Amino acid sequence: MLGLMQDQPLAISSLIEFAARHHHDGQIVSRRVEGDIHRYTYREAAARSRQVAAALDRLGLAFSERVATLAWNGYRHFELYFGIAGSGRVVHTLNPRLAPEQLVWIANHAEDRVIAFDLSFLLLIKAVWRQCPTVKHWIALCEPGALPSDSGIDGLQSYEAWIAGQSDTYAWPVFDEKSAAILCYTSGTTGNPKGALYSHRSTLLHAWAVALPDAISLSARDSILPVVPMFHVNAWGIPFAAAMTGARLVFPGAALDGKSVYELLESERVTMAAGVPTVWLMLLNHVKQNGLKFTHMRRTLIGGSACPPAMIKSFRDDYDVTVLHGWGMTEMSPVGTVCNLKLAQLALEPDAQLAILAKQGRALFGVEMRIVGPDGRELPWDGQASGDLHVRGPWIVSGYFRGEGGDPLVDGWFPTGDVASIDADGFLQITDRSKDVIKSGGEWISSIDIENVAVAHPAVAMAACIALPHPKWGERPLLVVVKKPGAEVSRDDLLHFYTGKVAQWQVPDDVVFVETIPLGATGKMQKNKLREQFKGHRLPG
Amino acid sequence: MLGLMQDQPLAISSLIEFAARHHHDGQIVSRRVEGDIHRYTYREAAARSRQVAAALDRLGLAFSERVATLAWNGYRHFELYFGIAGSGRVVHTLNPRLAPEQLVWIANHAEDRVIAFDLSFLLLIKAVWRQCPTVKHWIALCEPGALPSDSGIDGLQSYEAWIAGQSDTYAWPVFDEKSAAILCYTSGTTGNPKGALYSHRSTLLHAWAVALPDAISLSARDSILPVVPMFHVNAWGIPFAAAMTGARLVFPGAALDGKSVYELLESERVTMAAGVPTVWLMLLNHVKQNGLKFTHMRRTLIGGSACPPAMIKSFRDDYDVTVLHGWGMTEMSPVGTVCNLKLAQLALEPDAQLAILAKQGRALFGVEMRIVGPDGRELPWDGQASGDLHVRGPWIVSGYFRGEGGDPLVDGWFPTGDVASIDADGFLQITDRSKDVIKSGGEWISSIDIENVAVAHPAVAMAACIALPHPKWGERPLLVVVKKPGAEVSRDDLLHFYTGKVAQWQVPDDVVFVETIPLGATGKMQKNKLREQFKGHRLPG
Repeated sequence: MLGLMQDQPLAISSLIEFAARHHHDGQIVSRRVEGDIHRYTYREAAARSRQVAAALDRLGLAFSERVATLAWNGYRHFELYFGIAGSGRVVHTLNPRLAPEQLVWIANHAEDRVIAFDLSFLLLIKAVWRQCPTVKHWIALCEPGALPSDSGIDGLQSYEAWIAGQSDTYAWPVFDEKSAAILCYTSGTTGNPKGALYSHRSTLLHAWAVALPDAISLSARDSILPVVPMFHVNAWGIPFAAAMTGARLVFPGAALDGKSVYELLESERVTMAAGVPTVWLMLLNHVKQNGLKFTHMRRTLIGGSACPPAMIKSFRDDYDVTVLHGWGMTEMSPVGTVCNLKLAQLALEPDAQLAILAKQGRALFGVEMRIVGPDGRELPWDGQASGDLHVRGPWIVSGYFRGEGGDPLVDGWFPTGDVASIDADGFLQITDRSKDVIKSGGEWISSIDIENVAVAHPAVAMAACIALPHPKWGERPLLVVVKKPGAEVSRDDLLHFYTGKVAQWQVPDDVVFVETIPLGATGKMQKNKLREQFKGHRLPG
Repeated sequence: MLGLMQDQPLAISSLIEFAARHHHDGQIVSRRVEGDIHRYTYREAAARSRQVAAALDRLGLAFSERVATLAWNGYRHFELYFGIAGSGRVVHTLNPRLAPEQLVWIANHAEDRVIAFDLSFLLLIKAVWRQCPTVKHWIALCEPGALPSDSGIDGLQSYEAWIAGQSDTYAWPVFDEKSAAILCYTSGTTGNPKGALYSHRSTLLHAWAVALPDAISLSARDSILPVVPMFHVNAWGIPFAAAMTGARLVFPGAALDGKSVYELLESERVTMAAGVPTVWLMLLNHVKQNGLKFTHMRRTLIGGSACPPAMIKSFRDDYDVTVLHGWGMTEMSPVGTVCNLKLAQLALEPDAQLAILAKQGRALFGVEMRIVGPDGRELPWDGQASGDLHVRGPWIVSGYFRGEGGDPLVDGWFPTGDVASIDADGFLQITDRSKDVIKSGGEWISSIDIENVAVAHPAVAMAACIALPHPKWGERPLLVVVKKPGAEVSRDDLLHFYTGKVAQWQVPDDVVFVETIPLGATGKMQKNKLREQFKGHRLPG
């Protein structure tokens, strides 16, 4: 027997309509690519989202066709999210940090019909547009007057002209809540990029989950700045959760340097911000070097890669900002865990709390986790046992777009490729990516642990630990280090710095200093490239 | 095209399993009917819920059959919620405040197969059990030793004996998330009681919504005491939202007097409590009379009927407790709105904030609202226009169990029977129940407004304002008042008290003093009975 409740499919359009009706004057602030600050309200955002939807209807785009964006965090990108998905098409967010040939591969695989891009990516678009035969419409996110006359791109039009003639009263279509809404590609280190295809249902359930007090905690009293890009896993779902709760949104555009982000945090009285460790490092350095403080920001969500404990401690002890360490992946919409203390832990000493806050945190309700050993058997949640992390739940992929990569599930679970432990309180700690673990003499060394020690050294800006083959131990760790500008540290000093911080057999065998460590399109260190680069490096002893 | 996300139906069983796994030592504290304090953990609650499920399997109960409870808020009732619904049966919560003949009618209408009851209701069960032919199993929520030997009830067994032999490893069945889970009857003033039938889907969506920061705001750092009963609209969904977030639960059992509730709030360090105004009045009186304060409680959700502004002000100004005024109904699972300030309102003066906090608040995302005039046309959200309140959304009824009362919807909207205004910020203010509005000379007088003034008078314990027929004006207001013990106030003093507080033509024509005002099973004043009682009352002038 079914219940007798109204049969309302969950729909992304309902988020922006709710925000328009209940938070009509709620502000959305954007630092534009043009350089100035743009302000408007949820009511205006909704009206323009409806114009986007009407403009797509006018182009004759069918249900589920892909409309791609290549854009920074800003109000036009926000409108596109709702206009595209709300009208039944699929938002495909392209990552501008990809190489042109990767971009072409992905646009063709997705069979994008439209690509809307920030003018700052004009050169990139000029380089690729002829190789994207499925794309029939190129739209530059600007006023008509800013449109370059000599772009050479057939039929290029400005976003403002494109939507200008459309009505802002639009009847959003009603359809199956499991319909495709958003397509995000993830580029593994091997094989082709693979597309995670979110639905309206998964997007709304995820939005509820991330807005909860133990996740991001979003309300109509918050002002949130997502530094994490909307071109990468929907800025962790913040645009949707903000519309759901009426939180004030502050978009940083392209200016992600420490100074620009800091100024926006202060001038817009931001209470909560979210980003990856590398961006937050730039912010912290700026604040430290200039003797500044955070007037309004009290919480920041940091994820995308492991946040060094030293950063969490500095935010807390020096700036009274609570770091919420998070973990997730493109295949998880993307948030899986956020680190927030439990009731009994509020009474712990600051150091003991810090040890907990350095973990990736607790699963959101809706995400089931397990860790399994090499034999596939589940391991205990004791904070010690470390194994392959599997997840399942309604906002986790069952497969990839167009079947790429085959069926990823194992007994109904998605294998994350992470190695992790989980403690008795359910706090997840990512030990490593399974492909980055260093297997020395039958024991595992976590490359993340070794890197966390290195970046706590005052002279180290960035560090990567990789495995090199070793005749006796199988593999041994090599530490690759970028020094801070003007700072000095020797190989021996750095190795000595490990004393008492990790077991002696885990200390790297050698250190090499480099100018830069290659980063991927999502800001993660590309250790596969380092392994290639140093494959001939000879370890001492 | 559908998205490629895992197809996991939302299920109530997943809430208790999540709590057991992620908050295994999270505490559930119950003041038992036996008088003592019982403590255990989510892990134990989950194990015993599985035993309940297994025991129901053993009874041979089919999918969707009804299992009724007649119980106070406590751990056994909590286990029954999850064991019954999780195993695919329907939890039917009976309200012990109903008259025996109403209880019989409802149990027969629901075709309950099992009734589990607290021993404090033994007399009631003895009075009705022979009239409930569908009920095959009577279970007393107690140890075997506490079971009365001479109950006369065929086959009566104790809950503890019933579940004792069952395995606590149970494989919860997987089924359509729209399956019926919970049945709650609402007794209108006319017609038969009508059953709202919640689904697993509606229950989980509602749990996410009420746990958000702008609703109840529940986290693993909270300790919540629901005074609002689990036998009435699932204690506003708190048991489910608590399991979802790992909040500590404190159940008050049968002891709802001010002293008992206060002691539990203090001894269990409760941060958040929820209840109806009449119970909170008892609590406030106890605290005032004894010069006490609230050490831990900082927020309280008050709903069920309109909370007098004087109570909201006293909690805030005298005790530093924020009242979250809420509104909902059985047909809405039940929460529709909660009152929380918005960002811009944080800068207002305390009095201006109080005027907002006295409203019923903003809709949760998932609840759509509109107000319509007599002609069925939608009225503006200007805080002035007042009309019939309609709602729709995925946790709002589409009809009643077994078709009782026919199709309640109007153009897809559920008419609440409330008259309300909504301001530009989306804050709902219930003016009245449509049947309680007083229509005087073509204008409407809100009975709630008139009552709120009266209860702000120091000598008034309770007040009801009802319409009496009037030859010239159609209807005029009569105020029915219960004085506080030992307090004195005259008719003329009370009428004079209205000067400057409402328009002169809204001041009641007369006051009558009574010993008690009849309350319904859910604690609401039964104005229909007062209208009957005073139908011959002659208004002066």
